[in-house]
Amino acid sequence: MSQQGVHAGPTRQRLVEVAVELFTRHSVEGTSLQMISDELGLTKSAIYHHFRTREELLGAVIEPLMVEVTGLVDAAEARRGARARADHLIVGFATLAASNRQLVPLLSGDPGVLELLRMRSEWAAVVRRQMSLLADVEPGLGGQVKAVMVMSGLASAVGADYGDVDDDELRGQLIAAGRRLLGLRSPRDGS
Amino acid sequence: MSQQGVHAGPTRQRLVEVAVELFTRHSVEGTSLQMISDELGLTKSAIYHHFRTREELLGAVIEPLMVEVTGLVDAAEARRGARARADHLIVGFATLAASNRQLVPLLSGDPGVLELLRMRSEWAAVVRRQMSLLADVEPGLGGQVKAVMVMSGLASAVGADYGDVDDDELRGQLIAAGRRLLGLRSPRDGS
Repeated sequence: MSQQGVHAGPTRQRLVEVAVELFTRHSVEGTSLQMISDELGLTKSAIYHHFRTREELLGAVIEPLMVEVTGLVDAAEARRGARARADHLIVGFATLAASNRQLVPLLSGDPGVLELLRMRSEWAAVVRRQMSLLADVEPGLGGQVKAVMVMSGLASAVGADYGDVDDDELRGQLIAAGRRLLGLRSPRDGS
Repeated sequence: MSQQGVHAGPTRQRLVEVAVELFTRHSVEGTSLQMISDELGLTKSAIYHHFRTREELLGAVIEPLMVEVTGLVDAAEARRGARARADHLIVGFATLAASNRQLVPLLSGDPGVLELLRMRSEWAAVVRRQMSLLADVEPGLGGQVKAVMVMSGLASAVGADYGDVDDDELRGQLIAAGRRLLGLRSPRDGS
């Protein structure tokens, strides 16, 4: 640690933050470790101390989110009935999205992220279970189309610029939109 | 033309097709003109004959779609009533998406595409008008969130893998999902 001098060097956390920023601005494959070290004003070797490849860094960026999504999918699957399960997932994902407004939009559409989610088989399984929970509300193609729209729609919508909107208000609107799309009614317990 | 030999060289059309493929697989900023020429088995100068930069090529990829979207937005704005205008846009965009299942998903989330849409002021204006048409159905944040979800959701949903589904069936489900999300009823004329 003393080798990193007065400024204590790049923390892992700072690296992850800058990575999210550049991945969002340039896509994952459009971002090199060099660009990240330039942005931080560091040498590449200072980054290599933490991450050997861009994919390893991307994994670290996404891991905490996937841990939360996994817990959410587990909990949703424990509910009784397809509609209750889908509702649990929508509420949980909207909550997660509203408190990760920079990170979650990356999950929507970036080919590098989709590739990583496919490659990590335990994550690919979670994504499949998540889509099934949503698609099971309506059998057939209609349910599948709506499931994709909920997931990519919520992930995109949380990243849009609405001016000054607080997380809670946005969360409420994401939940309302997700429920509307799947034809779910707001439950009385107001979860 | 005779300089290009027996195989007649890369047509502009073939270049555009391969570009869409690589942009989808690697994102726009993750794709170089070199990668496109490699994929086509050509020298870079054969590509330079048609396009000087990746951005110019991306513009050519997106231009025909934006011409159609512009016509669609014009026609939607000519309808009377916010709901009829939004409905016209959803039906038109779903139709466009279902017959451009490879290209349209690029519009959802790729930072290079979003950047280009921002830079080309006439396209940025069309995108804004498109979002307004959808958001005007419901005043406030709820309408804005649903507008983003319709656009990015339809663009993503058309690119998902549903196995063997024909364009018409998919188009119908995209329209149904878009209408559901905005709370529009299917009109009797069955457009």
